[in-house]
Amino acid sequence: MTDDDRKATAPSRRSLLTVGGAGLALGAAAGAGAVTALRTGDETAPVADSGAAVPFHGRHQAGIAGAVQDRLHFAAFDVKTEDRGELVELLKEWTAAAALLTAGHAVGEGAFGGLAEAPPDDTGEALGLKPSRLTLTFGVGPSLFDGRFGLKSKRPKALVDLPKFPGDNLDPARSGGDLCVQACADDPQVAVHAIRNLARIGFGKVAVRWSQLGFGKTSSTTPEAQTPRNMMGFKDGTRNIAGTDTANLAKHVWVSEKDGPAWMTDGSYLVARRIRMNIETWDRTSLKEQEDIFGRTKGEGAPYGKKHERDEPNLKAMPEVAHVRLAHPDSNGGAMMLRRGYSFTDGTDGLGRLDAGLFFLAYQRDVRDAFIPVQQNLAANDVLNEYIQHVGSAVFAIPPGVADKGSWWGRELFTGKA
Amino acid sequence: MTDDDRKATAPSRRSLLTVGGAGLALGAAAGAGAVTALRTGDETAPVADSGAAVPFHGRHQAGIAGAVQDRLHFAAFDVKTEDRGELVELLKEWTAAAALLTAGHAVGEGAFGGLAEAPPDDTGEALGLKPSRLTLTFGVGPSLFDGRFGLKSKRPKALVDLPKFPGDNLDPARSGGDLCVQACADDPQVAVHAIRNLARIGFGKVAVRWSQLGFGKTSSTTPEAQTPRNMMGFKDGTRNIAGTDTANLAKHVWVSEKDGPAWMTDGSYLVARRIRMNIETWDRTSLKEQEDIFGRTKGEGAPYGKKHERDEPNLKAMPEVAHVRLAHPDSNGGAMMLRRGYSFTDGTDGLGRLDAGLFFLAYQRDVRDAFIPVQQNLAANDVLNEYIQHVGSAVFAIPPGVADKGSWWGRELFTGKA
Repeated sequence: MTDDDRKATAPSRRSLLTVGGAGLALGAAAGAGAVTALRTGDETAPVADSGAAVPFHGRHQAGIAGAVQDRLHFAAFDVKTEDRGELVELLKEWTAAAALLTAGHAVGEGAFGGLAEAPPDDTGEALGLKPSRLTLTFGVGPSLFDGRFGLKSKRPKALVDLPKFPGDNLDPARSGGDLCVQACADDPQVAVHAIRNLARIGFGKVAVRWSQLGFGKTSSTTPEAQTPRNMMGFKDGTRNIAGTDTANLAKHVWVSEKDGPAWMTDGSYLVARRIRMNIETWDRTSLKEQEDIFGRTKGEGAPYGKKHERDEPNLKAMPEVAHVRLAHPDSNGGAMMLRRGYSFTDGTDGLGRLDAGLFFLAYQRDVRDAFIPVQQNLAANDVLNEYIQHVGSAVFAIPPGVADKGSWWGRELFTGKA
Repeated sequence: MTDDDRKATAPSRRSLLTVGGAGLALGAAAGAGAVTALRTGDETAPVADSGAAVPFHGRHQAGIAGAVQDRLHFAAFDVKTEDRGELVELLKEWTAAAALLTAGHAVGEGAFGGLAEAPPDDTGEALGLKPSRLTLTFGVGPSLFDGRFGLKSKRPKALVDLPKFPGDNLDPARSGGDLCVQACADDPQVAVHAIRNLARIGFGKVAVRWSQLGFGKTSSTTPEAQTPRNMMGFKDGTRNIAGTDTANLAKHVWVSEKDGPAWMTDGSYLVARRIRMNIETWDRTSLKEQEDIFGRTKGEGAPYGKKHERDEPNLKAMPEVAHVRLAHPDSNGGAMMLRRGYSFTDGTDGLGRLDAGLFFLAYQRDVRDAFIPVQQNLAANDVLNEYIQHVGSAVFAIPPGVADKGSWWGRELFTGKA
């Protein structure tokens, strides 16, 4: 096969699709009976077709308010270059690659479309797979503002270093990071492929600090969907902010112009916590104790004293230290977060116990009004603490969406006013 | 809620299904246009409905020749009890649970059907999920025959300890095991739930020695399906034994009566190898070198000198050390295995590299005629060795299927003749 042959036959990932129509709904409006209509931003609609593509460009980044996909690969990066220009160049390259990947394409000239004498641009393991609703969501951590890149004055006041909470047992190797990319998709191979290719594009300039796979979503942004169960067997994501709930998204998730800094307008803040569950201990706890701890029934997921999962909880009907009561907005001055966490299982630890739990991801307008006070309340009082331990932690500023093809991840940060 | 209420409303996992008809095809014959017809054993048919249930009982265990599911959770166990009767009792309990789990039910009285004062029988995280083609495949390792359970004389000659191959860098904590259970399902939460609940049933009698999650299948037993790609971006499972290929299954996979021992008739032998890939090095290799190493094109997956993936390879057209050539039956005295491996990614190692690769699973009639000579050939010559390393290893005897509800995993071993 000659190089010309290769180029002539080089397919995009999408051109190899075997399912007609998948991935073709980019930007299309929802027709009657259509299941692939997608919008990013405030008007996010649920998506039934797990093979479809989610638009990359928009006012907000995708992967926040949109329908939660089945699988996760999350990566935190350390920036290795000290050259601001090189970092900006990388962010442009990443953005171009992310637009291709989320549309179901290979990056660059593809997995076999370039010169035979050169390494292929794309690693190839997602060839022939559907776009799978892949979203790539980009963020920057507090350490990016340490002075290396002239960004000190641009650090948002809301991008605080999280305090140490009671019970924290954080592993530095699973915490922090200058940058992050959250890859969500309905096919794990698509999410893993995306992170791998971004890491590869960044070779020499950034290095993966830690990464996390999630195999089962634990929250939903589409209330009509079945609430998934966490590894404790409970529905714990019932009262989430819906992707269609523009009022609560504006109030609790999106940074507004008046919040500042200007470069964060329409962005959000992400808290990521690796929460190990002591599965074996939990499994030896009685049903009544489990339900008392959550303040919900295990089967239906109804709050104590109510019949149905989505009934408004009567907080006084449940133990004072019940998880639902402590985490409820009414116990936290109205604080709400958009949760997007995933269950993880990383095999077995040295003691034969399942290394499993919840990789908690929550988006919010200001961590000082949301995650921090809620977690202070939970860490101090929640009886669930007997069965869980926070072992990894990070916080990121999530810039607004990439508006159009001329823009790139972080452009407002690097080029705009403080 | 009273205990009586709980019992009255205790659902099986299946009774919570929202998709009508899923899981109801147990034992049904394939009708015209039906997508859920399933049979275990020699007449395995491909399955298009990823939510369906796979029959548990049959001549052979499910999870071998049947259509390969999307996800894997594999666990190796050490037996902690020294009481043979207690072990037999556990295997009966496991079998009863496996029959329920694969049919889409919770184990025992379910996740909230028992007494409120007792821990629930089922951990609950698969409530409401479809059966997802879950199969549970049981095996016994060489160490089970060490004398603790009076089984010394029953060890099959074919259940050899694998020799050390050149390049092996095996971690004892990821190798061996007295027992194994392979859980395959289209939903990872279903596979993880099954292993977790079996481990829980075995608490105090067995302990998980190691476990492995696989997120993407790398082989298929249904040739009409698209061959999946491994983490090197190549199709490497093209020439696999099909689930419908009764001649090759009989010749290469199922233990026959004359092979002996009697308790293994209709069983098979499983080799499991954790193969770490040096992804970052591979990704810097030119397309031509990658293709030379495999002896296939990256795009189509055609063997060198041929046009299509499934064209019969012309071994002389490829480098002598090409992987396809070295692994081909013609280079190994006709040896064939049924491969059922999965890609894995366990996050990142301490050096920022993706801890990823292939969890190789291969079923065969006799490892002495199949895996061992093929791997000796590959370990000595394969240029792919520059990019991979075997870091975990185990071999298991896979007994025949559980014939009916009166039988159990390993019955032939514990009750039959040597």
